[in-house]
Amino acid sequence: MTAQAVDRYPTRQGVALAPRARHDPVVYPSPGGPLDPAQVRRYAADGFLLLDQLVDETTVAALGAEVDRLVGAPELADAEEVVREPDSDEVRSIFAVHRISPLVATLVASDTLAGVARQLLGSDVYVHQSRVNRKLGFAGREFAWHSDFETWHAEDGMPAARALSISLALTPNFVHNGSLMLIPGSHRTFVPTGGATPADHYRTSLRRQQVGVPDRASLTALVEQAGDIALVTGGPGSAVVFDCNAMHGSSGNMTPFPRTNIFVVYNSVENPLQDPFAAPEPRPAFVATRHVEPLVARQEASGPPATGFERGDVSR
Amino acid sequence: MTAQAVDRYPTRQGVALAPRARHDPVVYPSPGGPLDPAQVRRYAADGFLLLDQLVDETTVAALGAEVDRLVGAPELADAEEVVREPDSDEVRSIFAVHRISPLVATLVASDTLAGVARQLLGSDVYVHQSRVNRKLGFAGREFAWHSDFETWHAEDGMPAARALSISLALTPNFVHNGSLMLIPGSHRTFVPTGGATPADHYRTSLRRQQVGVPDRASLTALVEQAGDIALVTGGPGSAVVFDCNAMHGSSGNMTPFPRTNIFVVYNSVENPLQDPFAAPEPRPAFVATRHVEPLVARQEASGPPATGFERGDVSR
Repeated sequence: MTAQAVDRYPTRQGVALAPRARHDPVVYPSPGGPLDPAQVRRYAADGFLLLDQLVDETTVAALGAEVDRLVGAPELADAEEVVREPDSDEVRSIFAVHRISPLVATLVASDTLAGVARQLLGSDVYVHQSRVNRKLGFAGREFAWHSDFETWHAEDGMPAARALSISLALTPNFVHNGSLMLIPGSHRTFVPTGGATPADHYRTSLRRQQVGVPDRASLTALVEQAGDIALVTGGPGSAVVFDCNAMHGSSGNMTPFPRTNIFVVYNSVENPLQDPFAAPEPRPAFVATRHVEPLVARQEASGPPATGFERGDVSR
Repeated sequence: MTAQAVDRYPTRQGVALAPRARHDPVVYPSPGGPLDPAQVRRYAADGFLLLDQLVDETTVAALGAEVDRLVGAPELADAEEVVREPDSDEVRSIFAVHRISPLVATLVASDTLAGVARQLLGSDVYVHQSRVNRKLGFAGREFAWHSDFETWHAEDGMPAARALSISLALTPNFVHNGSLMLIPGSHRTFVPTGGATPADHYRTSLRRQQVGVPDRASLTALVEQAGDIALVTGGPGSAVVFDCNAMHGSSGNMTPFPRTNIFVVYNSVENPLQDPFAAPEPRPAFVATRHVEPLVARQEASGPPATGFERGDVSR
């Protein structure tokens, strides 16, 4: 455990505190990177940025096959990294997937993804969390509105809002199959939530969120300020980068079209985790890496994608 | 009770029967009407047609105020026509609304709406069902995929697929607030469902559908044949006309934006109800009118919209 800083984002203090302005910058000075200045400005203003065709078709196909393999892998059937739907046995998420799959590890460390994170966060970065999200046809449940940072701050001890997520689509994100919704500009306001984090909250919250859910009045105010809600659509290989405090959620998927995404959270190496700010204990390492290890680009696979199985040390 | 015709659309016979081709025409010969030939062809091909700005702003505002009045009317608080959300007390639907509200009655009988029905169904028409549907912000639940005709045939004794619905938007239908989804071309296939209709099924089915839900394989086949799913968006005053056998549904509404629609089902006077084809008893008249009364256009209100309360005879 580490020395605790002042809590600049109090949340889960019983009653819900009033929303407050964000304390941290959204974009940090950097020598440059894959994004052009207009893209950086849009990200700073909206709290997210769409990147069409970020990853090529061949790589997307290989990643899709890798996800299918992981979902069916008997070695992973009972792994803690594997989260199932609340009302069925279908795999909803696989956490720490960059430690489980060398192919995903290569993607996560690639300049295509990590370079964007370094550019926006203005420092070296490490992987706070990675996962595959699967929203199956007919069966995919909704994700309630939330700010990731609210949870990472309360439960993981992330001190500053200096992290971002990149969600890469492996299947089409249509308007009708439960695609990601974001409230533009919401990243500038921190919305504390009420209640208190129960012990081992992650065991249920990864299936269905109950604590850490913002109140309707605050959500309505954010949407009114934005004037609209953005629904992220795009083909396989497209991606969305979004700030850790951007308010987001997604509807259920009633269509036959599955939605599979690889989701990576990059945190600045200058923002290491401390003790949780509002939880009895930190969450396990497969959900929130507590060991800062700056990413170094891995050699791109020169042959066909790795098909072997290699499970990394997810508990350090 | 009337003499029973041969059942050309068997459904709810215990096991689910295989999908079969529709027996009835979609569009009937008529002397004309509000739609142009291209619109009629599109309706025949897709099973639905969008009509932008069908009703003017002033009328939409008056209808919106009327719905607010009905939702709050103490006389209606315990009325059987009023259906509430499964997990809250919020009003989800008000049935037989054209009998409850003179303003809605005028709309329903207007050539703008009834004229479209007469043109497509090739005969005089009457109102099989009318209702207000409210999908509230944050709280609106999904409607599972279904064909209305499957229910009207099984539970109401509608012999032929010679009816259609017009849904008029009173609030914006966005891509993200649970708007209507339709499977193009699905109206040409009748998908029988399994199980059997329990007694008084309507008391629960109007809140959440359990019997009459098509199987996933049939839905997937319809979507594959269509190549896509249509999501109906449009501003207040826009409408969608859809065939009684078009497969449709809608996602929940997680956004703060409510969705309110007036929904009218027109049936051909040449297609009167018989005994239910697969239910112990017919549903009550506020859900399915058993008395054929051809619509005659009412005098449009010349002054401000009626504000009085007049409850019609909903039980005949």
